[in-house]
Amino acid sequence: MTRCQRRRTSVSGAFMLPRLLCLLCFAVISLAEENTEMVNVATERKAEESHRQDSANLLIFIILLTLTILTIWLFKHRRFRFLHETGLAMIYGLFVGIILRFGVHLPQDLNDITLTCAMNSSPTTILVNVSGRFYEYSLKGEVRDSKGHDVPNAEMLRKVTFDPEVFFNILLPPIIFHAGYSLKRRHFFRNLGSILSYAFVGTVTSCFVTGLVMYGCVVFLKVIGQLGGDFFFTDCLFFGAIVSATDPVTVLAIFNELKVDVDLYALLFGESVLNDAVAIVLSSSIVAYQPEGDNRHTFDGSALLKSLGVFLGVFSGSFAMGAATGVMTALVTKFTKLRDFPLLETALFFLMSWSTFLLAEACGFTGVVAVLFCGITQAHYTYNNLSAESKSRSKQLFELLDFLAENFIFSYMGLTLFSFQHHVFNPLFIIGAFLAIFLGRAANIYPLSFLLNLGRKNKIASNFQHVMMFSGLRGAMTFALSIRDTATYARQMMFSTTLLIVFFTVWVCGGGTTPMLSLMHIRVGVDTDQDNSVTPDGMTQKSTKHESAWPFRLWYTFDHNYLKPFLTHSGPPLTSTLPACCGPIARCLTSSIVSFPFYAHGMPTPSTSQAGLCSLARTSDDPLDRELVFGGTRLVLPTDDPSDPLTSFPPPPPSPPLSDPLRHRV
Amino acid sequence: MTRCQRRRTSVSGAFMLPRLLCLLCFAVISLAEENTEMVNVATERKAEESHRQDSANLLIFIILLTLTILTIWLFKHRRFRFLHETGLAMIYGLFVGIILRFGVHLPQDLNDITLTCAMNSSPTTILVNVSGRFYEYSLKGEVRDSKGHDVPNAEMLRKVTFDPEVFFNILLPPIIFHAGYSLKRRHFFRNLGSILSYAFVGTVTSCFVTGLVMYGCVVFLKVIGQLGGDFFFTDCLFFGAIVSATDPVTVLAIFNELKVDVDLYALLFGESVLNDAVAIVLSSSIVAYQPEGDNRHTFDGSALLKSLGVFLGVFSGSFAMGAATGVMTALVTKFTKLRDFPLLETALFFLMSWSTFLLAEACGFTGVVAVLFCGITQAHYTYNNLSAESKSRSKQLFELLDFLAENFIFSYMGLTLFSFQHHVFNPLFIIGAFLAIFLGRAANIYPLSFLLNLGRKNKIASNFQHVMMFSGLRGAMTFALSIRDTATYARQMMFSTTLLIVFFTVWVCGGGTTPMLSLMHIRVGVDTDQDNSVTPDGMTQKSTKHESAWPFRLWYTFDHNYLKPFLTHSGPPLTSTLPACCGPIARCLTSSIVSFPFYAHGMPTPSTSQAGLCSLARTSDDPLDRELVFGGTRLVLPTDDPSDPLTSFPPPPPSPPLSDPLRHRV
Repeated sequence: MTRCQRRRTSVSGAFMLPRLLCLLCFAVISLAEENTEMVNVATERKAEESHRQDSANLLIFIILLTLTILTIWLFKHRRFRFLHETGLAMIYGLFVGIILRFGVHLPQDLNDITLTCAMNSSPTTILVNVSGRFYEYSLKGEVRDSKGHDVPNAEMLRKVTFDPEVFFNILLPPIIFHAGYSLKRRHFFRNLGSILSYAFVGTVTSCFVTGLVMYGCVVFLKVIGQLGGDFFFTDCLFFGAIVSATDPVTVLAIFNELKVDVDLYALLFGESVLNDAVAIVLSSSIVAYQPEGDNRHTFDGSALLKSLGVFLGVFSGSFAMGAATGVMTALVTKFTKLRDFPLLETALFFLMSWSTFLLAEACGFTGVVAVLFCGITQAHYTYNNLSAESKSRSKQLFELLDFLAENFIFSYMGLTLFSFQHHVFNPLFIIGAFLAIFLGRAANIYPLSFLLNLGRKNKIASNFQHVMMFSGLRGAMTFALSIRDTATYARQMMFSTTLLIVFFTVWVCGGGTTPMLSLMHIRVGVDTDQDNSVTPDGMTQKSTKHESAWPFRLWYTFDHNYLKPFLTHSGPPLTSTLPACCGPIARCLTSSIVSFPFYAHGMPTPSTSQAGLCSLARTSDDPLDRELVFGGTRLVLPTDDPSDPLTSFPPPPPSPPLSDPLRHRV
Repeated sequence: MTRCQRRRTSVSGAFMLPRLLCLLCFAVISLAEENTEMVNVATERKAEESHRQDSANLLIFIILLTLTILTIWLFKHRRFRFLHETGLAMIYGLFVGIILRFGVHLPQDLNDITLTCAMNSSPTTILVNVSGRFYEYSLKGEVRDSKGHDVPNAEMLRKVTFDPEVFFNILLPPIIFHAGYSLKRRHFFRNLGSILSYAFVGTVTSCFVTGLVMYGCVVFLKVIGQLGGDFFFTDCLFFGAIVSATDPVTVLAIFNELKVDVDLYALLFGESVLNDAVAIVLSSSIVAYQPEGDNRHTFDGSALLKSLGVFLGVFSGSFAMGAATGVMTALVTKFTKLRDFPLLETALFFLMSWSTFLLAEACGFTGVVAVLFCGITQAHYTYNNLSAESKSRSKQLFELLDFLAENFIFSYMGLTLFSFQHHVFNPLFIIGAFLAIFLGRAANIYPLSFLLNLGRKNKIASNFQHVMMFSGLRGAMTFALSIRDTATYARQMMFSTTLLIVFFTVWVCGGGTTPMLSLMHIRVGVDTDQDNSVTPDGMTQKSTKHESAWPFRLWYTFDHNYLKPFLTHSGPPLTSTLPACCGPIARCLTSSIVSFPFYAHGMPTPSTSQAGLCSLARTSDDPLDRELVFGGTRLVLPTDDPSDPLTSFPPPPPSPPLSDPLRHRV
C-alpha cells in the first residue's frame, strides 16, 4: 500500500490546462452514481502492487545482465581469459543474492492466509469463495516453513524465484537451438561416430557410474546417520543423469577464440550438445521407472523395460519431431517465394523452430531434444533456401537469444545460491558428488576413447582425452534439470550439490582451460579450413566422405542425391538422381531456381545436360545461388559453416581419400 | 491422466542396447528403498500434465501466426491490399476461437476444489494446508460462474486465456519501442507542433467527448432498464480514454507501401504513436480519480486535481525515465569500445531498452510510455554510436519482435471473441459506442486542424483531415487496456464493445484505406526525400528548422550544439560550442573519433580549426563516420531515417527558409 500511494503523492503541484473541460464533465458526475465498490479498487491496487514487484524483480536481472555485458567487454578488451562471461554472470548473481538475503529488509506481506482443506494431494487450481465471489488460484509450489520463517526476507526471496518451467520453456530452447544451428557440420559429421559414442554410450555410462558411487555415498551417510530424509537409488541415478550433461559454452568460447584444433573442437562440441539431449531424456526415463504396486523402489523387470522404452521412444520421437519440423520449414521456404520478404521469412523460421519445441512438449516428447535436432536440420536444409538477409537475421537473432538466455541462467544460478530457501548442504554428500562426477567423466572418456581408437584412422590422442576429461563443465542444462523439481529432501540436496558443481567446474575448469591447453600442448591458432588441402587450382578437397564408416557414407549419398535436392535449392536436380519412372514427380519437385551450376562468383556455366525443366527461365543474382552444385556432383557434407555463406566454394567431385598432410597432432 | 499415459504406451516395442548395464544396476535397487511417496509422483504428474496443456495452448497461437505469415505472403505476392496482416490474424483467431468453443469437447477437470473463507477481499497469494504440507497458490482472477457453467468447454477456454499482464509486460513494449525507434524523425520533427496538439489536446478532447456521449447512452439504457449492472461516469471516461488510442499499424503499412505524402504520414504516425502514450496515462489517471470518503462517484475538486496531477506526473515521469535510459545507453556506447563486439552491443542495447520499461513500471510510472520515449532517444542519439552491424541487428530484432507481438495480439483478439466467457454484448451500448468514437474522432481532428491551420505555413488540407478522421483505427493498445481489467460488469461490457470496435475499424477502415486515398486524391508514390529541393551541387537543402516555431528552433540549436556532440560521435565538437571556461571538460567529453568533417563518401577534408584534441589520432573507415558534421554546422534534425544510414548525406549550413516548390497538395 505504501508503494501504491507513491505515484499519487509525487505529483501534487500540477498544471491545469484542460481543467475547464474537466470541470464541465465532472459536474455531471455528482448527479448520478451510487453503490460504492471499494472491493474492486482494493483488487486493482493489489494487482498493481504485485505487478510492480515483478517488474522490480525482473529489473534486478536485467541490471545484472547489463553489468555482466559491460564487464565482459572490459575482459575481452583487455584479453583476460581466466573468467568467462558465464562465470562472471554467476559472480554478479551471487552478490545480488547476498544483498537480497542479508541487505534488504522488506515488510512482510500480511495478506498470506492459510486455508486448511482435507485433500490427499494438492490440486493445480482451486477456487476460493470469498464472501460470495469466486477467485481462481493456481498452484505455485510447496512452501516448506509457512510462517515460522527461519530465513529473513523469505517473502522477498520467494518473489525473485522463477518458476523452474521458465527455464525449460523460455530459456533453454534458444540455447539448445543455437547449439544445433551453429554446429560446424563438416567437422561434426567427420567425427559423427565418435561423437555419438561419447554422447550415448558415454553419457549413459557416466550416469550409471555416478549413480552407483552416489548410492554408495548415500548408504554410508545413512549408516552414520547424516541423512535427513529419503534418498533412493532412483534418486542417485537421477543425479547421475543430470550431472552427466556437459555444457558447451564456456570451454568452447575459449576454444573458438584460440582456434583450437578442429577435431578436438568438434568432438567436445558435438558431445556436449548431444549429451544434453541424452541426459534430459535419461533423467525423464529414470523418473518414469515406477514398479507396479505400492513399493516403487524395488526392482521390477517390466518397469525397467518400460523405462528403457521411454528412453528410446522419447528420444526417437523428439528426434523425429525436430527433424520433421525442420524438413517442413525447408519445404515451405523452398516452394514459396517467401524469400522476397525477409521479415516474413525470418518470422516463419523463428515460429516453426519454436513450434517444434511446443509440439514435442505437447505430445509428451522432450522439447529441448526436438529443438536441437530441428536446429541441425534447419542449418542443413532450410538455411540454404533462405534469402541472404534472413540468413544473417536468423543467425544473429538466435545468437542474441542464446547469449541472453545463457547469461540469465548463469546469473540466476549465482543468485539462487542465496535466494533458494531449502538448501541442503551435506559436506559428505558434496565430496562424494565431486568424486562421482570425476569418476563418471573418466569412465566416459578413457575407455570409450580406447575403443574408438581401435577403429579410427586418426586416433584421439591422449592429450585430447585429458582435455575432454577436464572440459566436462556442467552448466545450464544441469541446473535446469536440478531446479525443475525441488519438492523432496533428496531433490533439494541434489540441487544444492549441483549448484556447487556448476560453480566449481565453470570457475575452476573453465578458468583453467587456457593453461590446460598449453600444458597439454594442444595446437592452437588453427584455421578452420586449413586442413582442406588446397589443390593448385585453388579448389579445396574434402575427404570427409571417405573418412567415415560405411553407414555414414550411405547416408551422405542418400542425403546428397535425394534429400538436399528435394528440400533445398542445391544439390543435383532430382531429375538426374531419381529413376526415370519418377520423372514427372522429380520435375515437379526440382527447384525452379536450381540446376544451373555456378562457379564461385555467381557466373553461370553452360548447363549440364540434366538441368531441370524450368532451369532456363531465370538468371540469378543472389549469393545463395552460388552455393549450387558444381558439375552436378557437389559433396553433400558441405563447406557449410552457416556463419559464412559467402566464403564457401562449391567443391569439385570428391577425390580419392588422402591422408591430410596439413593436419598434425601435437 | 489419459494424456500422461500416452507417452508410456506409445513406446512399447523397444530396443535394448544398454540393458545389461541397467540390469546390473537395478539389481541393487531391490536391496534398499522403502517408504513410498505416491504423493510426489502424483504432484509430478500433475505438473507435467499442466505443462503439456500450456504447450499445446501456446502451440495454437504459434500455428495461427505461421498460417498468418503464409497467408500474408500470398497476399503480398498477389498485391492484395484490402486486408492487412493484422486483420488476417484476427480472422484466423476467430476461427480457432469458434473451434475451441464449439468443436472441441474435453473432459472437465475434476480437481477444482472450492474453498470458502471469510475475507473481505481476495489476497494475492494464499497458502493451503493439505494434510500437513503447505502449498502456495497465487491469484489468477475472479471466476464468474464457478460450477454451473453455461458455457461449454469453460475449462478449455479458461486455459487459452492469457494473463492480461502478458500484453503489458511482454507484447506491448516491443511494439511501442519499435514505433519510437522507427519514427521518421525528420518529418516527425517538422510537424512536431501539430502532432503534439493532436496527440495531447486531441486525445483528451476525444476522450471526454466519447465519455460524455457514452454517459448519455448509459443513462438512457438505465432508464429503459437495459443495463444489467453499475456503469459510472468514470467508467464512461475510462472507455473514452481507451478507445482514443489509435493504432499506427494497419494504415501506415499501406501508407508505407503506397508511399503516401510524407506530411500526412508523419501527422498520422506521430499522432498514433503519441496518443497511445496519452491514452494509457489518461486511463490510469481516470482510474486514480477517487474522491475521499465512501462515495467515489461524486464530484470532488481535490480528487480531480489529484487525477490531473497523476496525468502530468506519470506522463512526465515516464518521459524522463525513457529519455534518461536512452541517454545513458548513448553515453555507454559512446565512451566504451563496445562496438568492437556487435553481439555485446546489441545485447546491451536490448537490455537497456527493456530496463526502461521495467524501471518505469517498478517506480509506478507507465512502462509503455517510457519505452516509447526511450525508443525515440535511442534512435536520435544511441543509433549514431552503434557499429554498422549493431545498427542493422537492432533494427531487425525490433522489427521482428514488433511483427510477432502485433500479430499475436491481433490473433488473440480474434480468439478472445469466442473464448472470453464474460462477454456482455449490449446492442444499444455498442451502437452508442460507434457513434461516440465517430464523434470523438471528429472532435479531435476537425477543430484542431482548423486551429492549427491558423498558424501553419503549409496548411493541413481538408482531404488530409478526412483521411486522418477515417484512419483512426483502434488496435493493440485499445485491446490491451480494455482486457487488463474485466472484473466488473461495466468493464466486461466495455471489453466486448471494444473488441467489436477494433474488428470494425481494422477490417472496414483498414481495408478501405486504399480506396479512401484515391477518393480523396491523396498523392501517392512520393519519394521520402523528394521534398528536399536539390541544389545544383547535389546537396540537399533542409528547411526543417526554419519551418518550426521558435521553441522548437531553440531546442534544435541546443540539441545540435550540446546534446548531440555530448552523447554521440557526431555534431560539432563540444570544444567549439561550449564557452571557453569549460575547455577541459569539453575536451574530455568530445569523442575521440569525432570532429573530422567528412564529405558524403567518407573522404576527410582539411580539419576545421575547432577540431578536438584527439581528432588527429584516427582515420575512420566506418560508415557511421560519414554521418558526421559538415563544416561544423550540420543541421541537427537530420537526414536520419534510421533505416538507411548509407544514403544520408550531411547537409550544408541551413539556408534561409524557402517555400518548397516540389511539395504539392492535391
